[in-house]
Amino acid sequence: MKGRRAPASGEEGRVDTFAADEQNRPRKNMNTTLQHSRAHMGSAMEECIKNCLDCHHICLETAMNHCLETGGKHTEPAHFRLMINCAEICQTSANFMLSGSELHHLTCGVCAQICEKCAENCERLGEMDECVETCRRCAESCRKMAA
Amino acid sequence: MKGRRAPASGEEGRVDTFAADEQNRPRKNMNTTLQHSRAHMGSAMEECIKNCLDCHHICLETAMNHCLETGGKHTEPAHFRLMINCAEICQTSANFMLSGSELHHLTCGVCAQICEKCAENCERLGEMDECVETCRRCAESCRKMAA
Amino acid sequence: MKGRRAPASGEEGRVDTFAADEQNRPRKNMNTTLQHSRAHMGSAMEECIKNCLDCHHICLETAMNHCLETGGKHTEPAHFRLMINCAEICQTSANFMLSGSELHHLTCGVCAQICEKCAENCERLGEMDECVETCRRCAESCRKMAA
Amino acid sequence: MKGRRAPASGEEGRVDTFAADEQNRPRKNMNTTLQHSRAHMGSAMEECIKNCLDCHHICLETAMNHCLETGGKHTEPAHFRLMINCAEICQTSANFMLSGSELHHLTCGVCAQICEKCAENCERLGEMDECVETCRRCAESCRKMAA
Repeated sequence: MKGRRAPASGEEGRVDTFAADEQNRPRKNMNTTLQHSRAHMGSAMEECIKNCLDCHHICLETAMNHCLETGGKHTEPAHFRLMINCAEICQTSANFMLSGSELHHLTCGVCAQICEKCAENCERLGEMDECVETCRRCAESCRKMAA
Repeated sequence: MKGRRAPASGEEGRVDTFAADEQNRPRKNMNTTLQHSRAHMGSAMEECIKNCLDCHHICLETAMNHCLETGGKHTEPAHFRLMINCAEICQTSANFMLSGSELHHLTCGVCAQICEKCAENCERLGEMDECVETCRRCAESCRKMAA
Repeated sequence: MKGRRAPASGEEGRVDTFAADEQNRPRKNMNTTLQHSRAHMGSAMEECIKNCLDCHHICLETAMNHCLETGGKHTEPAHFRLMINCAEICQTSANFMLSGSELHHLTCGVCAQICEKCAENCERLGEMDECVETCRRCAESCRKMAA
Repeated sequence: MKGRRAPASGEEGRVDTFAADEQNRPRKNMNTTLQHSRAHMGSAMEECIKNCLDCHHICLETAMNHCLETGGKHTEPAHFRLMINCAEICQTSANFMLSGSELHHLTCGVCAQICEKCAENCERLGEMDECVETCRRCAESCRKMAA
């Protein structure tokens, strides 16, 4: 289906290839392995999906383990909520892109803002370099998708 | 925690009462029943949470039952994706509000746009009055929360 | 689609009516209002969906507001995780039922166990009567759906 | 926090290292990069998290693109629902493990059963080798975590 996704210039990823095949003839086989298909993921969107999934992973894991176990400022409501909210919008944003949504630029736009705030908050708190880096990387690629 | 939520003028709902109580003294008991607490839900935010949860409910149930079983234009990719995407952003938007997020205006803003598009799409398709109404109601209360 | 759902004896709810209509002729209109359709929800499954959604609502809201703001034993990792995990499995279990899944008995079975543990844990902690009640009610209806 | 997770023999992954550090002294820095931390992921649980996230990714992407665009038997309700349900339980199961839940064996047990059914269903349909493989791999590692 042409136009299934909001146009991402230069996007030549696996999913568009799917679509083209499917329009013309039934696919004979989708037995590309996961590893294979991922090797082909060069597009801005595939990169953004990966960054959102990584950010969801790190924020949820860090909040529910590091933050809960450290306590103190790490379970201060505003900080802890931001970590959990950031994890959730990253998951939703990834799911929009995975589903081929034409509206992923909307979720990516909000995801970029929330990841940026989470990065700033974690930076201020200190000792959370991995979260800061992962949120920044996600924010940057989401901004591109939202443009 | 004061300011746990973005200010909703006139919000006097159950959750802010929580917050106030908690600031002054440990709550002795949160044995308000669910029924009781819901009777008190008068605020714009509680209304918006309800509308988001209803919209998630109707869009997911309709897509996965009515649309899949009817087929034809009801499983046309753009329509079906919009139903599923609408259900997901409503869930996320409700979760942000339920979690006391200061950033719920961002998810509500996007939710309003997606619900509006879903309503228009369902209206064009026809035979989907419940979805149209529920999406419109959700869009309207999300717009208010986003303002 | 007959058998869309695992059989729930006595289920005469809105969704099965959908299905029957759809088999025979295109539905002319689904303009039952949400209020109307909910008035018809008498089945064990509709009750279970409602209980799961309520339990998700209360557990998430309580964890992210009451627990985070009270701190102390309320943010003790085992307790806090159980509240968040309970909210998530309730959401998933509701989504399985809303989607007409034939496998909802599996998610309901696990949901019943997790809600029961959450109820016990909240009871031991004290001051969380609403969570205890809501989790117990959800566990009970999930057990029925899982049977 | 000892016992944060159900014991996984031989688990020496990043998260337990977190926990140990946190018990003894405040962590000075969590600036392990994501790449670094992933290089250390050798445990059965980290493997299972990865398999669940991959399975969520493939099932959701395939259902919402390949299946919707191909139509026919690919949007047959029982098949399509199974793909969407499989994606959701994989996400939930991953989230339980990421959150350090002591109850992940319950969600993993159900996830294994649903992935196995999804693999069988996709195999019968044909032309879905990647889904079959990914679901099987996820089912296998979930069975181990559930044991």
